[in-house]
Amino acid sequence: MARRRGNLAGKVGLPPGSLLHVGNTYTHSAEVRMVCYDSESLQEKIVRKVEELTSQRAEAAVSWISISGIHETGLIEKVGNAFRIHPLVLEDILNTDQRPKLEDYGDYLYIVLKAFRGLTADELESEQISLIIGVDYVITFQETDQDLFKPIRDRINNGKGKIRKEGADYLANALIDVVVDNYYVVLEQLGERLEDLEEGLVADPSRNALKELHVLKREMIYFRKALWPLREVVGVFSRSDSELIQQTTLVYIRDVYDHVIQAIDTLETYRDIVSGMLDIYLSSVSNRMNQIMKVLTIISTIFIPLTFITGLYGMNFKYMPELECEWGYPAVLVLMLSLVLGMLLFFRRQKWI
Amino acid sequence: MARRRGNLAGKVGLPPGSLLHVGNTYTHSAEVRMVCYDSESLQEKIVRKVEELTSQRAEAAVSWISISGIHETGLIEKVGNAFRIHPLVLEDILNTDQRPKLEDYGDYLYIVLKAFRGLTADELESEQISLIIGVDYVITFQETDQDLFKPIRDRINNGKGKIRKEGADYLANALIDVVVDNYYVVLEQLGERLEDLEEGLVADPSRNALKELHVLKREMIYFRKALWPLREVVGVFSRSDSELIQQTTLVYIRDVYDHVIQAIDTLETYRDIVSGMLDIYLSSVSNRMNQIMKVLTIISTIFIPLTFITGLYGMNFKYMPELECEWGYPAVLVLMLSLVLGMLLFFRRQKWI
Amino acid sequence: MARRRGNLAGKVGLPPGSLLHVGNTYTHSAEVRMVCYDSESLQEKIVRKVEELTSQRAEAAVSWISISGIHETGLIEKVGNAFRIHPLVLEDILNTDQRPKLEDYGDYLYIVLKAFRGLTADELESEQISLIIGVDYVITFQETDQDLFKPIRDRINNGKGKIRKEGADYLANALIDVVVDNYYVVLEQLGERLEDLEEGLVADPSRNALKELHVLKREMIYFRKALWPLREVVGVFSRSDSELIQQTTLVYIRDVYDHVIQAIDTLETYRDIVSGMLDIYLSSVSNRMNQIMKVLTIISTIFIPLTFITGLYGMNFKYMPELECEWGYPAVLVLMLSLVLGMLLFFRRQKWI
Amino acid sequence: MARRRGNLAGKVGLPPGSLLHVGNTYTHSAEVRMVCYDSESLQEKIVRKVEELTSQRAEAAVSWISISGIHETGLIEKVGNAFRIHPLVLEDILNTDQRPKLEDYGDYLYIVLKAFRGLTADELESEQISLIIGVDYVITFQETDQDLFKPIRDRINNGKGKIRKEGADYLANALIDVVVDNYYVVLEQLGERLEDLEEGLVADPSRNALKELHVLKREMIYFRKALWPLREVVGVFSRSDSELIQQTTLVYIRDVYDHVIQAIDTLETYRDIVSGMLDIYLSSVSNRMNQIMKVLTIISTIFIPLTFITGLYGMNFKYMPELECEWGYPAVLVLMLSLVLGMLLFFRRQKWI
Amino acid sequence: MARRRGNLAGKVGLPPGSLLHVGNTYTHSAEVRMVCYDSESLQEKIVRKVEELTSQRAEAAVSWISISGIHETGLIEKVGNAFRIHPLVLEDILNTDQRPKLEDYGDYLYIVLKAFRGLTADELESEQISLIIGVDYVITFQETDQDLFKPIRDRINNGKGKIRKEGADYLANALIDVVVDNYYVVLEQLGERLEDLEEGLVADPSRNALKELHVLKREMIYFRKALWPLREVVGVFSRSDSELIQQTTLVYIRDVYDHVIQAIDTLETYRDIVSGMLDIYLSSVSNRMNQIMKVLTIISTIFIPLTFITGLYGMNFKYMPELECEWGYPAVLVLMLSLVLGMLLFFRRQKWI
Repeated sequence: MARRRGNLAGKVGLPPGSLLHVGNTYTHSAEVRMVCYDSESLQEKIVRKVEELTSQRAEAAVSWISISGIHETGLIEKVGNAFRIHPLVLEDILNTDQRPKLEDYGDYLYIVLKAFRGLTADELESEQISLIIGVDYVITFQETDQDLFKPIRDRINNGKGKIRKEGADYLANALIDVVVDNYYVVLEQLGERLEDLEEGLVADPSRNALKELHVLKREMIYFRKALWPLREVVGVFSRSDSELIQQTTLVYIRDVYDHVIQAIDTLETYRDIVSGMLDIYLSSVSNRMNQIMKVLTIISTIFIPLTFITGLYGMNFKYMPELECEWGYPAVLVLMLSLVLGMLLFFRRQKWI
Repeated sequence: MARRRGNLAGKVGLPPGSLLHVGNTYTHSAEVRMVCYDSESLQEKIVRKVEELTSQRAEAAVSWISISGIHETGLIEKVGNAFRIHPLVLEDILNTDQRPKLEDYGDYLYIVLKAFRGLTADELESEQISLIIGVDYVITFQETDQDLFKPIRDRINNGKGKIRKEGADYLANALIDVVVDNYYVVLEQLGERLEDLEEGLVADPSRNALKELHVLKREMIYFRKALWPLREVVGVFSRSDSELIQQTTLVYIRDVYDHVIQAIDTLETYRDIVSGMLDIYLSSVSNRMNQIMKVLTIISTIFIPLTFITGLYGMNFKYMPELECEWGYPAVLVLMLSLVLGMLLFFRRQKWI
Repeated sequence: MARRRGNLAGKVGLPPGSLLHVGNTYTHSAEVRMVCYDSESLQEKIVRKVEELTSQRAEAAVSWISISGIHETGLIEKVGNAFRIHPLVLEDILNTDQRPKLEDYGDYLYIVLKAFRGLTADELESEQISLIIGVDYVITFQETDQDLFKPIRDRINNGKGKIRKEGADYLANALIDVVVDNYYVVLEQLGERLEDLEEGLVADPSRNALKELHVLKREMIYFRKALWPLREVVGVFSRSDSELIQQTTLVYIRDVYDHVIQAIDTLETYRDIVSGMLDIYLSSVSNRMNQIMKVLTIISTIFIPLTFITGLYGMNFKYMPELECEWGYPAVLVLMLSLVLGMLLFFRRQKWI
Repeated sequence: MARRRGNLAGKVGLPPGSLLHVGNTYTHSAEVRMVCYDSESLQEKIVRKVEELTSQRAEAAVSWISISGIHETGLIEKVGNAFRIHPLVLEDILNTDQRPKLEDYGDYLYIVLKAFRGLTADELESEQISLIIGVDYVITFQETDQDLFKPIRDRINNGKGKIRKEGADYLANALIDVVVDNYYVVLEQLGERLEDLEEGLVADPSRNALKELHVLKREMIYFRKALWPLREVVGVFSRSDSELIQQTTLVYIRDVYDHVIQAIDTLETYRDIVSGMLDIYLSSVSNRMNQIMKVLTIISTIFIPLTFITGLYGMNFKYMPELECEWGYPAVLVLMLSLVLGMLLFFRRQKWI
Repeated sequence: MARRRGNLAGKVGLPPGSLLHVGNTYTHSAEVRMVCYDSESLQEKIVRKVEELTSQRAEAAVSWISISGIHETGLIEKVGNAFRIHPLVLEDILNTDQRPKLEDYGDYLYIVLKAFRGLTADELESEQISLIIGVDYVITFQETDQDLFKPIRDRINNGKGKIRKEGADYLANALIDVVVDNYYVVLEQLGERLEDLEEGLVADPSRNALKELHVLKREMIYFRKALWPLREVVGVFSRSDSELIQQTTLVYIRDVYDHVIQAIDTLETYRDIVSGMLDIYLSSVSNRMNQIMKVLTIISTIFIPLTFITGLYGMNFKYMPELECEWGYPAVLVLMLSLVLGMLLFFRRQKWI
């Protein structure tokens, strides 16, 4: 998996700004899509040549250029040059091991964050999203060709909400909001898995439950690693004094900020619950062992003395007066019976049965 | 359960301000109730048409509009329009997964918090309360039709205390105080359950105790999630420089703030105690196992060698001189008896009996 | 116990400032005692009528009014009116579930803290102390009639130290110092109990030790709840810019502050040690179990095979050639002996014996 | 090992500034290498006499003097005198137990950090790197003769990147960057070891896995001790207002800062995972024990009663009517069989088989 | 032990500034030694009468008065009066339960810290050191007569380093440095004990190892209690704006500050390692138990069924056809052998052998 097996180590000593793709390798061919819109007009097209991005862009109020597939290093470099993006930013876009962060380069803001697509049986599927926010354009970089931002595309097409009337900052915030909304999908999946697990755990503390618990815990650790820094990113975004952000957009950014805080809260709650469940698991295992031991002890404690008695009268000594008595056998049977009853009484006093 | 099974995920990509009810579904029909009062006059009525809220309100110093049942989205939207409330606020009112927060919109303050009705066998019952505090009105939104604010209604009716002489800010603070007072009810229920559990735990570390402990722990986690942010909410409220809050009310808000801090303190104390109780539980289980093992070991250690001896003289070899001796049987009995005594001595030295 | 079973819940919805006693109920009758002194004169009397407090007070530089027994709500209310104390303060004085705090009301300071009288077998005995510090008077409110402040009374009577030469602020600080000094008494009792426990724990991890550990841990949690906020209270007191506090008194307040910090330090150290002791306890229990299992295993491993052999030659088959041999019995005995020796060798290699 | 066995204790009471080598002893002879370069010219040489450092240095824009082997105290002292370095700094360079730190001495900055060369079977190999950053020179001190900075040397030789065009501050940052890049190599090795371990842990919780886990945990503790202070060092470096740092270099320093933060993040994630793995290990061991106990209990519970029955009819009483019956033996066999079936049914109900 | 058994409780209610010795009682007679020096002259003498301290002091630049034995309360009081030291300071000097702290009294600084002499088998030996730093004198108070500051005395005598050329502030810093250097001695001893323990722990998790671990952990808790506040003390010292501290001395104080930070770092690392070792210990104990259980289970599982079979054919039924067969005995032997082989196969599949 990329997140644990990057090839960052291969970068030792390279000069800063060296463009090298670090991350999963995808085979789909990268696609550049441009949507130019204002409240009146709307134009969407697949861009084949990077030059079109600058030559055909100036027509509308806001241009949104979305690039899916950062593994084509040459393409990214060309786009970077066209929009005069700092080489260190391009390097960060290509390196999918980034920590969520926001950097203000004056002419544009650079935001990087992680999008989660959902929770499979034992892993969270994620990809890195980079945003360049300029005065009248937003560029998004995705790893895969999954159409994460479809809801936004639809809202632009339908003219639903305020999006067509607002600027690039509003668009950028809407894009981030979609990513954060997807976190809730993951959190709900986690919540459901936890609830299912919780019910089964006390009843049957199997080894599979432990494994599932471990998987959930591990994935939460990775989820958390993406979520916590986002708090600061969106917080800085909402308090930004950049000229690129308009006053009216700030209330919407703060709304997204609230969502992030809420997601963190929920995640921390889940973590607390998971750690409680491990205690429950361990206690259940102990309890189970206790029960097994009790059965063993009861059986042994009852029969071992009885077996000794039978052994006693199974000895072949010539002179054993009891053996000759007619009442010997019934007497022994009675002795044994009273022993068993005594034992059972003792167990009841110990609250074992 | 609503708190873990919202349908937030269904909101992915919706434009901000989309009014969608997220939370439990209730079937009771929403009710809008308006109380208008000042130190002289008092008027209470059930409002059927939202228009009456604005047309009939201006008569008294303070109007308190309480709405129970936020699942009727249309109603909420109409009220929102009547008081010119921001769509993002309306969205938050409808979404019962909110984190307690306070937002200052200049003309009005928006406060959201959780009310707890008490602790049933295995769950805390809660609902979300939203407050809109204007210059001469307070609007409260509840999920259920339970009359949480009855004590305040009574105080207004009786003219008890200062409430009739003060403004909307004082009313809002009194409403929050009722919610916080209810936290103490929950804390006392938790305290009693913990005390009962503690007494039983060392005596009899059963599986039920573990389950009860787990339930209490989990509910405390949820309670805490509602309580901690409230500290900041009331803290901000008490330090607010909003013109809606009068200087004389601040001392009462700080009083509520103290109550919140105290509730947090108590909750954290309970959490410490619960975590101590789990250690006790685990230790008790270990101790119990130890005791069982001791019994098993004592029985086995005494009888296994004896049984071997009886086996020895139960063999059918032709030439076993001991078997022919007249003193053979009594000698073996004496041997066994001395073995048993030796064992018992050993156990006493080991402090097992 | 009061600390866990207040009747705060009974206060839901009451207007702020409602005077209601919350806490243990005592049967002794409340006593009001007034000491008026300056460096020259000294007068001490039991006050029967609250009016005397104001009429007879003005004679000396400093008046100390100590009230033991806050369960007489009427008395407290009268005193409060006589000194024009805010109703919210009176409410807090009556409610013994307060968190230690300091509030500056301009004319007077209000301080509430917990006094500990010592550690009984399984509980810390505590009571709530409230102080009202005015310009030339100090009022103290106690729950019980135990003479906690006797050392100060003695110092005033003897004219020992600076107390007779200083003002009300110095007196208040001296009173707080007595309370903090009593914390050290409790800490020493805790320290001694811990040391005794520690010695016994490794030697004999009994169930009683666990219970004692749990009691100490729980009481420390409650002690901590009273101690930590005190740090802030005395800290604020020592940095206070109130006109009621003279510059020369500040060095003495800082001295008390140091004592509080030191007490917190010691308590945290004890908590670390207690948590270490629980680990020791659990390890000792595990170790003990190990030892028991070893004995059981050694006995079983030696005798079970031997018993099998005896069983083998106890079978009643007609054709068993060994049984007929004259050397059969001694051969079997030799075989058994060598088996035992082999086992013992194996155990020594496993370091079990 | 040096990191745990320095001879710092031998320094008790020595005056500050006493030059004493503290750390591993190496036998290789120290080497002083000087590279002088600007965008035009480049000169590299091994320096034999310390005097050459000052006499031959002034030719180019930037001089980089790298010294490998700090155990030759005399050499370090001479270099220190030549560049007028404070004796306390020289003392710190020689003492390899330093905590990463940055000190601003006006004319030069002193930075000390730890370089990690990789993770062997059970230890992280590290050495201490000291940097003196002057206006037109950088001096690096290494413990070993391993060419850690080869990539930088190559970049200078090839004129790759901006390094030849920038000043001493850029060079210093590039050197630090190489050290931080090496941290990623270590982190990847740790990540791979963790992943391998994780797979094996649930399947087979052997004692070796525990040892490996312990080694990884311990090495992470040491790694963390080097990594956390670096955050502050590079942070201070990036916010430095020293005249030695040019404005244009700051963006590159902030890039390195991001790398450090990211490395810390990854390390903390690993630590969380390791602590989760220990829980898994303990649970697996418990589970295994449970399984063993189950087998033992099943076997014992089935056969102990059967053996008792055989013992019963192995007794030698004269009058045992059952023994005479023809159907006695088959009846006992049937009894035993039904007992076994009953047991198996009981076990299935207990979910043991 | 003094650190846990002070008689602070005996001070309840005493007026502040009461001189009472709290701590261990020593029997050696207190000694007052005065060293007066500047770069030219040097004079050292044992002072018999406190008056000499002031009458004979004025000759040199710096006077260092060291007092060993604070149990002679009268002596301390006289010295205090001679140098006009605040009674609260004298009280703190006599009370050996002080937390490390620095207090600025304008004319002089008061510093109190703990010196550690080393780690015996089960305890850290410590004593409290108090420093009074005036404009041209330093007074040190020790509990014992051990010559902790001998290295400084030697440096003054030899004129080694800068000490003879600098003022009282430099001397004070050198004295503190000696105390901190001694912390490293303790840390090294702790490190060695930990390393020895670590090696033995996995191999042989004996009860002694647990006890040793507990002792180390406890002593670290006490060490930490002395070390952490020192950080603040030296930090405040290094940032002090007191006129008693010269600018040139600050760099040396910062050096000591670095040493304190480094010591704290090392201690925290040790604490992490100790907590890891306890996990290892518990796991090893579990593992060991597992192994014992395996042996027991293997033995039981093999022999219990065999013994049952022998019992079967040891029954005395008249009609048991197998017993009459000539091939009965060999057949049973073969059956038993195949049972054993089957068991062994099962165990191998379970990876138990």
